[in-house]
Amino acid sequence: MTHANSHTLYDLLGITLPIIQAPMAGVQGSALALAVSQTGALGSLPCAMLSPEALHAELTVIKQQTDKPVNINFFCHPLSEPDPQREAAWLNALAPYYQELGVSPPQSSAGAGRAPFNTEMADVLQAFQPAVVSFHFGLPAPDLLARVKSWGAKILSTATTVEEALWLQAHGADAIIAQGLEAGGHRGMFLTDDLSTQMGTLALVPQVVQAVKLPVIAAGGIATAQGVAAVLALGAVAAQVGTAYLLCPEASTSALHRAALASPAACHTVLTNLLSGRPARGVVNRLMRDLGPLSRLAPDFPWASAALLPLRQQAESLGRDDFSTLWSGQHASACQPIAAADLTRQLSVAR
Amino acid sequence: MTHANSHTLYDLLGITLPIIQAPMAGVQGSALALAVSQTGALGSLPCAMLSPEALHAELTVIKQQTDKPVNINFFCHPLSEPDPQREAAWLNALAPYYQELGVSPPQSSAGAGRAPFNTEMADVLQAFQPAVVSFHFGLPAPDLLARVKSWGAKILSTATTVEEALWLQAHGADAIIAQGLEAGGHRGMFLTDDLSTQMGTLALVPQVVQAVKLPVIAAGGIATAQGVAAVLALGAVAAQVGTAYLLCPEASTSALHRAALASPAACHTVLTNLLSGRPARGVVNRLMRDLGPLSRLAPDFPWASAALLPLRQQAESLGRDDFSTLWSGQHASACQPIAAADLTRQLSVAR
Repeated sequence: MTHANSHTLYDLLGITLPIIQAPMAGVQGSALALAVSQTGALGSLPCAMLSPEALHAELTVIKQQTDKPVNINFFCHPLSEPDPQREAAWLNALAPYYQELGVSPPQSSAGAGRAPFNTEMADVLQAFQPAVVSFHFGLPAPDLLARVKSWGAKILSTATTVEEALWLQAHGADAIIAQGLEAGGHRGMFLTDDLSTQMGTLALVPQVVQAVKLPVIAAGGIATAQGVAAVLALGAVAAQVGTAYLLCPEASTSALHRAALASPAACHTVLTNLLSGRPARGVVNRLMRDLGPLSRLAPDFPWASAALLPLRQQAESLGRDDFSTLWSGQHASACQPIAAADLTRQLSVAR
Repeated sequence: MTHANSHTLYDLLGITLPIIQAPMAGVQGSALALAVSQTGALGSLPCAMLSPEALHAELTVIKQQTDKPVNINFFCHPLSEPDPQREAAWLNALAPYYQELGVSPPQSSAGAGRAPFNTEMADVLQAFQPAVVSFHFGLPAPDLLARVKSWGAKILSTATTVEEALWLQAHGADAIIAQGLEAGGHRGMFLTDDLSTQMGTLALVPQVVQAVKLPVIAAGGIATAQGVAAVLALGAVAAQVGTAYLLCPEASTSALHRAALASPAACHTVLTNLLSGRPARGVVNRLMRDLGPLSRLAPDFPWASAALLPLRQQAESLGRDDFSTLWSGQHASACQPIAAADLTRQLSVAR
């Protein structure tokens, strides 16, 4: 299949293959991004869990290794204060697990990580002036966004509804990532917290294409060349693919996560707020079965995660994924343990 | 786009366009089915709410009007007994509405309609020997299925998971309708009642294609030629399209239902069990907002609906859709008030 948008795609993102490797915080760094970008597709560096120093180090590696564009991705959630009452209730709900595993609850939730894009990050970014920057959960404050746009970076952000797509278009995005309900990891929703508004990729993409003037990138459930061809038929200019890369050697996916993805368990993913405080799709594990995947007990994003850290570490040391983040979309059965460059070329084959 | 499956499709269903008009009980009869089948696609007659006499009458009309195949569709749910305690609790939950509208609750739930396929229906069907028969909620008992297969009818049924697709293949289906989460109306799920197992069309279809040897028909969120091209790219032999037909003059969609579909309200559909007892997707209305779309208060399928009937009738007479079934998939924005034959040809245009 050829499509009319190759020109748009090159002008917009500097790429020749209609594939964006989805940024996946915690399971990949510059190695995967570089392997994908070197094929002519767009690799992504997830920065939501990086310190400014770590961001600097990763951007340095990328600059040394390639002249091709790499998408630098940040979360930009409004940062809520920790709520001591909800944290206490959460620790209380988890108390039986601390006892079972013989570990102590953390003294504070400071280890929750996942800072939103801020001035410090913008300072680091400005030194490198990456050509493509993407955001999840909306867009940063206008002054921060203006800084990123000042060196000509193209801005991508995620919409999960037509309303969010229109908002992003009105607030300075250069392209929209339409994220269908099949997608793994955190839902990018930012104008609503009502999960019933979330649509499947096949319904969402054409409605976003219809509503906005910007190029649309499809995400969610795309894991094969046929899936890429399908979303191009729907009017997307490119496909953002995440889960399919998780078994690649260049990803830092843990052994437990890899085992879950390669097992029949990966047939059943759910949206859960237990692991971070925001709904994200992952393979069902013990914590979700015990508490239900969506629970009011979990504190707001990102504070839910700190209390789980000692449980996760201890359980993982015993070879158990009971408290682990096993992010996955709804098409993990297509995952293959092959080089990221080979996967990227496979995904592009129907073009 | 051409595809390799035209031969399969003609041999299987006797059709030349890769479109099946989805059977939609309560909003269409033989008129829509005939209009679609006469184009070379497959129209469908929904029989879940028909008496044997009404079925006979509809099949007679079809026989008089066309030699082309029309898909005759039945529900085949296990029929539960009404549960007086749950019915009383349901009436109690609805009591404020009876008072508000000045109507009386029904004396029994006998009016719930929606009988599963049975011997009487099979007797009527045998006299007409339709070429294509489809089922929702699994397959009927082996003896009933054998009767339908005895005259060479091709059997279609709906799968919402890979497991259901494998079950249908093992139990005598000739093709699988893979129904993604975007689809309007009742979810065809029959091996699980866990909604978190339900996948978007873009993820479900290729995994079912991969798992079974039978031809796969994609359903859910397909409302344009681009959507049809997309699911053919995923390996489906045809697309089943429902919601897009609801504004056609040949459908019997009510004025309130048409108005909801043409309004911004149709952007927000939910899965609800309030209206029948089984999860089905429709436009959000007052009852769903008041009680939450999924509630343990609603009795099992189909018994939930009888209690709503007097409320629905009275509210509708006042021009309100507060208790109405406004079934819709997640892509109602593509609905057009055009002739069903024209819509069918539009949907097929990318071939």
